[in-house]
Amino acid sequence: MLTHFDKVFRIDLRLKKDEQILVGVSGGPDSLCLLDLLHKNGYSVIVAHLNHGLRPESGDEAHRVEEVAVSYGFPFVLEECNILALSEATGKSLEHMAREARYGFLFRQASVADAQAVLVGHNADDQVETVLMHFLQGAGMTGLMGMKKITLPNPWSEVIPLIRPLLMTWRSQILDYCRDNNLDPIFDSSNQDTEYFRNRIRHELIPYLESYVPGVRVRLLQMADVFETDYKFLHEYIDRAREDCLEICGDGYVPFDAICFNKQPLSLRRHLVRWAISTLREDVRELDYDAIERALSVAKSVSQSGQQDLVMGIRAYLEDGVFYLASWEADLPQVQWPQISHEVIIEAPGHVELSNGWYLIVKPIVNGESVQEQVSTNPDPYRAWVDVGDQLTSLKVRGRRAGDMFVPLGMGGKSKKLSDFMIDQKIPKRARECWPLVCLGDEIIWVPGVRQSHEFKLGPKTEQVIYLQLIPPS
Amino acid sequence: MLTHFDKVFRIDLRLKKDEQILVGVSGGPDSLCLLDLLHKNGYSVIVAHLNHGLRPESGDEAHRVEEVAVSYGFPFVLEECNILALSEATGKSLEHMAREARYGFLFRQASVADAQAVLVGHNADDQVETVLMHFLQGAGMTGLMGMKKITLPNPWSEVIPLIRPLLMTWRSQILDYCRDNNLDPIFDSSNQDTEYFRNRIRHELIPYLESYVPGVRVRLLQMADVFETDYKFLHEYIDRAREDCLEICGDGYVPFDAICFNKQPLSLRRHLVRWAISTLREDVRELDYDAIERALSVAKSVSQSGQQDLVMGIRAYLEDGVFYLASWEADLPQVQWPQISHEVIIEAPGHVELSNGWYLIVKPIVNGESVQEQVSTNPDPYRAWVDVGDQLTSLKVRGRRAGDMFVPLGMGGKSKKLSDFMIDQKIPKRARECWPLVCLGDEIIWVPGVRQSHEFKLGPKTEQVIYLQLIPPS
Repeated sequence: MLTHFDKVFRIDLRLKKDEQILVGVSGGPDSLCLLDLLHKNGYSVIVAHLNHGLRPESGDEAHRVEEVAVSYGFPFVLEECNILALSEATGKSLEHMAREARYGFLFRQASVADAQAVLVGHNADDQVETVLMHFLQGAGMTGLMGMKKITLPNPWSEVIPLIRPLLMTWRSQILDYCRDNNLDPIFDSSNQDTEYFRNRIRHELIPYLESYVPGVRVRLLQMADVFETDYKFLHEYIDRAREDCLEICGDGYVPFDAICFNKQPLSLRRHLVRWAISTLREDVRELDYDAIERALSVAKSVSQSGQQDLVMGIRAYLEDGVFYLASWEADLPQVQWPQISHEVIIEAPGHVELSNGWYLIVKPIVNGESVQEQVSTNPDPYRAWVDVGDQLTSLKVRGRRAGDMFVPLGMGGKSKKLSDFMIDQKIPKRARECWPLVCLGDEIIWVPGVRQSHEFKLGPKTEQVIYLQLIPPS
Repeated sequence: MLTHFDKVFRIDLRLKKDEQILVGVSGGPDSLCLLDLLHKNGYSVIVAHLNHGLRPESGDEAHRVEEVAVSYGFPFVLEECNILALSEATGKSLEHMAREARYGFLFRQASVADAQAVLVGHNADDQVETVLMHFLQGAGMTGLMGMKKITLPNPWSEVIPLIRPLLMTWRSQILDYCRDNNLDPIFDSSNQDTEYFRNRIRHELIPYLESYVPGVRVRLLQMADVFETDYKFLHEYIDRAREDCLEICGDGYVPFDAICFNKQPLSLRRHLVRWAISTLREDVRELDYDAIERALSVAKSVSQSGQQDLVMGIRAYLEDGVFYLASWEADLPQVQWPQISHEVIIEAPGHVELSNGWYLIVKPIVNGESVQEQVSTNPDPYRAWVDVGDQLTSLKVRGRRAGDMFVPLGMGGKSKKLSDFMIDQKIPKRARECWPLVCLGDEIIWVPGVRQSHEFKLGPKTEQVIYLQLIPPS
């Protein structure tokens, strides 16, 4: 009869005995049990220990783990870091920094050693606590599936799996194993402080829930497995939808084709937003329901130019048919817009260089008659024919200013606030500030790419026609 | 500015004002609030009340609900039943019977009145309690999505939706509404008794959980919505898989093509088993993880003839490539097997009628030489050529008996227990007892459809050849 521990290194873990396994060993019961089992089963192990430097006894503990490694004849690698300092420097939580530092270290070492896998000691109680914490925060499937037995790819590697062989083993079984095998685990004195929430769940909430449903721990462990399976199924469709909709990502932003995105079933749209935000902010672990709903409403907004703050410095934008999730500080791609950051004098004939490869060209036309009819409606926003009298040397191109007014051609000569006109014309909000305006003095002659002014249209008395053209990047 | 209650009858409920709506009204705050809102908004309502007969004041309450209906000018329908007696007679729980009786009544009345929908008053707190109860029982997606705002089809109708307009309205909002509108709800004195578990969740657990995560109720309500969406997505694939794999269901059993079933992703296989069991036993609401895993292992069993008890009188079988989920008492389809329930004497030439349209025919062959070679291996399990000397009148066909032995042709004359031979030959367990055996006295000459006996094969001294044939149903 196989004992529970005989079945821990199941066939589906695919661990080979003649290839190195890197094991994260804190020195606690879980990792000592794991190490002992690996040793008994004849695996090739590298023992890795990260000294977080959070407690006075950290150094001693590192030394004890090294002694254990030596006693098994396993190589030992150690790294020290100052999690507290890192946390303070980055403004990220201690728990997040510790996790990042730990897995970063383990996978760096695994990569150096060409190890087949990184193993850590999480047990079934850890899993139940994780599931319960996520549940209380209203997490979806990805939260309720808890930790995975095998994670590949993972945030630290595309090729080295993260494996948790003890994920179906209860803490009590591990403690019994340690006792029966004369292992001497370290009991971390800081648990009570650094992971207060988890400890309250462990010591108070779970025992209390047992009074509602005896065996609740087992049920939650099984539930996590069911959700892992469901998510695995769903994940294929999320991946496919992402392939269909995702445009080229940049630093700090994730762009989706809005039409394609909006065609996806609601379930997939929510998962895509979750994925995008987790890509932008790896420290956002539980995502607010309302934030996701806001993002989805931006994607669907009728104005074609919506914007919403979501959560922790992430925004959603809709611009020119692209639905962006982006961090506040990100430079979104602006290649599609002409922009100008400072005032420039037009020299005619000549050209003005705008941002992102756009140009404005300007030239006088001698025979005004030939364009007279053409310009009475002017359906082409990329070209303008204007009458500026003899003021040609006073023409300039600039961005907008507070109080700018504009008299759009074709609207009966009515004057509008430029800002309102830009909204009407669905110029993306981010693009408005530096949208080039061709002006005579302070008066706007032409909003390139959009509309020329009624005030400067050609008339019966026009003597000199000025031709302007906006040329997109080639 | 719209108040919360202005948004209760949202467009997506698709309720028409000029068609009848049947509302289940207990007289409690939820249903009175719902009724008042419907009245204010000008809907055409029928008030339906089921008197469960569980409490002395039931009759008075029915009368009060009728008065409310009359005050609005709404028609009133009443039914009385004895839930306690029904529960005792069927052995099903009081809660289950009350639910069945209530919805059965509402939908019967809705059908009679040609109503567009049945409305009930479940609120957001009910939803959170439901989600939490399911979570503690380790439920999957279908449990964590809780109740649905609109359910169609539902167990009671394919055409009339069950709608819960107040599912996003908190109990406190409903109580405020009742107070502000001078409604006088009945507070059910039996809540404390009949729904003890739910009440403990409501009054103890949820307030306690708020101390872990403030706003946990809102988070769980939102989570239910996310799971409903995810399940809606998954459901399409479950439906498709079911269409692919499901064979013709019978009374008390659900059959899947085993090869097709086993090809489905694990997630869908689990959901299909859940669906099948819920079809067979509508009162099984939370399904044991282990039961589902056992069912899946039966579907995959190598022996091609597995069987497992699952849960509450449901079994899983694998037979002839069909994976069945069936209640204990169900008659599975046996049309594919020849069966005999009693002993029959063979008359030669002649035939014996077996169950399900199978026949055995028997006839003497004069020239034995012509089949001599053919029968030395006999690859055809549906035919046999045997030498029974002059004992032709002693031949009979019967089912098996304890202690039956058999000497299969082609196995060197070794004798085997018939029961072992049947297992080797993958005769389905249920079919073994009544599988027809052609015998001379107690000795088995032929297992029709499987193998003839070594002992009765033709030999150099054979004078009289008896030819036997098993004929499948046409």
